Amino acid sequence: MEYRDLIRQRCSVRRFRPDPVPEALQNEVLEAARAAPSAANRQPFRLIVIRTEGRKAELERIYGRPWFAEAPLIVCAAAVPSEAWTHTDGTNYAWVDTAIAMDHLILAAANEGLGTCWVAAFDRAAAREVLGLPDGVEPVAFTPLGYPDEPPGKKVRKPVNELVKFDRW
Amino acid sequence: MEYRDLIRQRCSVRRFRPDPVPEALQNEVLEAARAAPSAANRQPFRLIVIRTEGRKAELERIYGRPWFAEAPLIVCAAAVPSEAWTHTDGTNYAWVDTAIAMDHLILAAANEGLGTCWVAAFDRAAAREVLGLPDGVEPVAFTPLGYPDEPPGKKVRKPVNELVKFDRW
Repeated sequence: MEYRDLIRQRCSVRRFRPDPVPEALQNEVLEAARAAPSAANRQPFRLIVIRTEGRKAELERIYGRPWFAEAPLIVCAAAVPSEAWTHTDGTNYAWVDTAIAMDHLILAAANEGLGTCWVAAFDRAAAREVLGLPDGVEPVAFTPLGYPDEPPGKKVRKPVNELVKFDRW
Repeated sequence: MEYRDLIRQRCSVRRFRPDPVPEALQNEVLEAARAAPSAANRQPFRLIVIRTEGRKAELERIYGRPWFAEAPLIVCAAAVPSEAWTHTDGTNYAWVDTAIAMDHLILAAANEGLGTCWVAAFDRAAAREVLGLPDGVEPVAFTPLGYPDEPPGKKVRKPVNELVKFDRW
């Protein structure tokens, strides 16, 4: 899809059909994340692709909404700060880079007709345990990934003059 | 452009022509950022669009590479943590949301034929002073914005099996 249209049409999806995600589309969304830029090209993130079949109760410990594990797949984007570029002032860019990669993935999903929903309100301890994350790997966001089973929602945004300043604050 | 092609073609640009960015394209890249999703739709970011003409020496205090202020525009993406959604565990998502908005903007720029380069290694104190940022507004990243004056670079990425795990770590 033309990018101008894609960003206007993409919206959060919270109802999913059980149909599997074809492997070619799964690969395409992962490639989109892989193409994402990162500070000093360190690529300090991991994507964990989780098949929900047979694991719904366990996955709902991570995020308790019934639609979360309704999709056939869930993707977790995790940051690895030890691999990231760090500013001389100490600011580590792992979370920024992970957000960029996840944004690439989420737009790719919409472009392939798949639904997603950024989930930040997950249970961090449950995520670590269910996914077996080692120390130093920090889950940043999750999304279900599957075919939408609801009509597109309406996008509500602040007016541009509340978000943009010119030349100086 | 088709999104699949856009993410493969977009690359960092470090040489710019002085030609101005047409206002319609400037508006399109800002609209792309505005369309970005954010945690609980809080949109806790600001974009500061800076005209470089007559301000190059001052802007080079923010980031000293000669190509930074060579473009006619620079955009600063800044986070406003007090406006952001915060997890019950205390994690504030302002920087994640700002990164998503900037990623939308940077992809939009490439889609309109414009060049960008994520800049994280900027001088935070100089940025605050030159842009007159109030307390509580945190610059996350800058990019020059203008027409590229160099051929596209080659994308080098880790193999997919280093970035992706299946089901568990």
